[in-house]
Amino acid sequence: MSEFSIIENYFQGRSFQRRDVALGIGDDCAITDIPEGQSLAVTTDTLVNGIHFPESTPPILVAQKAVAVNLSDLAAMGAEPAWLSLSLSIPEHDEQWLHEFSLGIQQMSEYYSVQLIGGDTVKGPLSITITAHGFIPKDQALTRSRAKPGDLLYVSGSLGDAALGLDICKGLVHAHPSHKNFALDRLNNPSPRVLVGTMLRRIASSCIDVSDGMLSDLKHILYASQCGALVHVDKLPLSHAMTQTVSAEQAYQYALNGGDDYELLFTVPESLKGQLELALVNANVSATCIGQIAGLNEKLRLTLDGEAYTTEINGYDHFEEECSE
Amino acid sequence: MSEFSIIENYFQGRSFQRRDVALGIGDDCAITDIPEGQSLAVTTDTLVNGIHFPESTPPILVAQKAVAVNLSDLAAMGAEPAWLSLSLSIPEHDEQWLHEFSLGIQQMSEYYSVQLIGGDTVKGPLSITITAHGFIPKDQALTRSRAKPGDLLYVSGSLGDAALGLDICKGLVHAHPSHKNFALDRLNNPSPRVLVGTMLRRIASSCIDVSDGMLSDLKHILYASQCGALVHVDKLPLSHAMTQTVSAEQAYQYALNGGDDYELLFTVPESLKGQLELALVNANVSATCIGQIAGLNEKLRLTLDGEAYTTEINGYDHFEEECSE
Repeated sequence: MSEFSIIENYFQGRSFQRRDVALGIGDDCAITDIPEGQSLAVTTDTLVNGIHFPESTPPILVAQKAVAVNLSDLAAMGAEPAWLSLSLSIPEHDEQWLHEFSLGIQQMSEYYSVQLIGGDTVKGPLSITITAHGFIPKDQALTRSRAKPGDLLYVSGSLGDAALGLDICKGLVHAHPSHKNFALDRLNNPSPRVLVGTMLRRIASSCIDVSDGMLSDLKHILYASQCGALVHVDKLPLSHAMTQTVSAEQAYQYALNGGDDYELLFTVPESLKGQLELALVNANVSATCIGQIAGLNEKLRLTLDGEAYTTEINGYDHFEEECSE
Repeated sequence: MSEFSIIENYFQGRSFQRRDVALGIGDDCAITDIPEGQSLAVTTDTLVNGIHFPESTPPILVAQKAVAVNLSDLAAMGAEPAWLSLSLSIPEHDEQWLHEFSLGIQQMSEYYSVQLIGGDTVKGPLSITITAHGFIPKDQALTRSRAKPGDLLYVSGSLGDAALGLDICKGLVHAHPSHKNFALDRLNNPSPRVLVGTMLRRIASSCIDVSDGMLSDLKHILYASQCGALVHVDKLPLSHAMTQTVSAEQAYQYALNGGDDYELLFTVPESLKGQLELALVNANVSATCIGQIAGLNEKLRLTLDGEAYTTEINGYDHFEEECSE
């Protein structure tokens, strides 16, 4: 079966269909329209077998994660997802695998109302590259560069679960089956915080998604905003599965340096704290204040129960770190 | 060196800078703006080492080809190129390779006034995925589906040179050094027909770029437009290098079935023939009339000097065909 028929057979017409797509899969390009007054947000992420997901991950979860990590980047800008382009490298033409993978793409497409508008398929080691497109009202994008000293630092959901899941899958940590399932689900099936992102548009001063580890991603905000920060380690949001599986000290390490959380880390001016809390309640979303932005000369400081806390900042570097079951 | 610093160090700020890019490389997404009245054309193409380019191809040419094949898809829709997203899979962090590759991206970016707006770098076998974005006035996209019986069939430039180059590089064909250089240059450094594409906007009834082989790509037009066609094999445009290197029969085969030409194959209503010829002269571009669109029941017929000509249609299928030097 040729490249052409792989895309045609498995992906064409099988995603959510949007009115702003004049022409989808099947020509040299897709043709799309942007609503007036909106900018376009564009992001690209590649997942490689054995590095970004364990070898044995079911194809439906691979597809879901590939879409999710891209939607998470859109969420971090406050953008509303619209379209996906897919490049799939597969070692052989495996009908069952392709069927299940395309089902995963379809489910994400329908859940988030995004349309798959094009793609390419090549023979090679399993990897998936997605370019995701979204809309954001002009001049409302949540960048990394506008945090100010005094802004409160928040994170959505809980931290470190995916890294815990990775260590469970590697056999380095043993967990109760229900905690194991929770942590593996957080690793393999992350939920991009799309709603939180759009909700933060006129509230947050800066935002990033936590993909490399909270501290590592916080450093991107601090670098781009030329600020320092104080983080209260005892306030880090930890899941029940986390606190029941490892010691407090290990949990802090997962929460500070674990990758693949896909939560949003954002800063909010103190004057907008009330507005944020109202919005969180309305959207039924949890976010925790974990610290405060400081001046550049105060650098990045951590405290635990009021005492200085020291840790290495180990950004989760996919390029150097391999995971295989 | 981490993913983060590879993108920052080799690509950020090193491409043509456009005013419609509000935010380029360095945040979770790029933020861009589309001019009023324009639609967005989006295309994705992946090149794999040893399949889409020979193993020994210099990195600067790999970069140029990866950009060119994507701009060729934009050209085939009549779109004006604007932005590129890049995903690069590389086996190791090779500074020299990355330097030369980024130089190739930079040169294409400057030549075609496109900006690299984002990217991802992963460790893996060498492959390059680019998503290219361009603008096209609303409702003027050149699709595959609007050819009509009676329309004249044209192709830009010359056909088959890249396939000849591939066979020369495989040692299957011997050529005079100057012809070899010409054919290898057509293989490794194709020129996307961006100007021709935009020029054809109000003239061509359908258009496709020749990437899989002329006949194979013509079939895409015929299928999408529900038409047949008559092609005059003796009228196929052949380069001097082609006619001096192989027999006429071999040359026809390269021209009919060779891949990677990245010329534009398009149809023009007879009533617009004069307008087309004027536009070609003004743009200093060559295109050759090689046949005519017919009714669906006439299927695809070939003639050579007025006699029926038969050939197999071997679409150049990257997925099944490997090239290695």
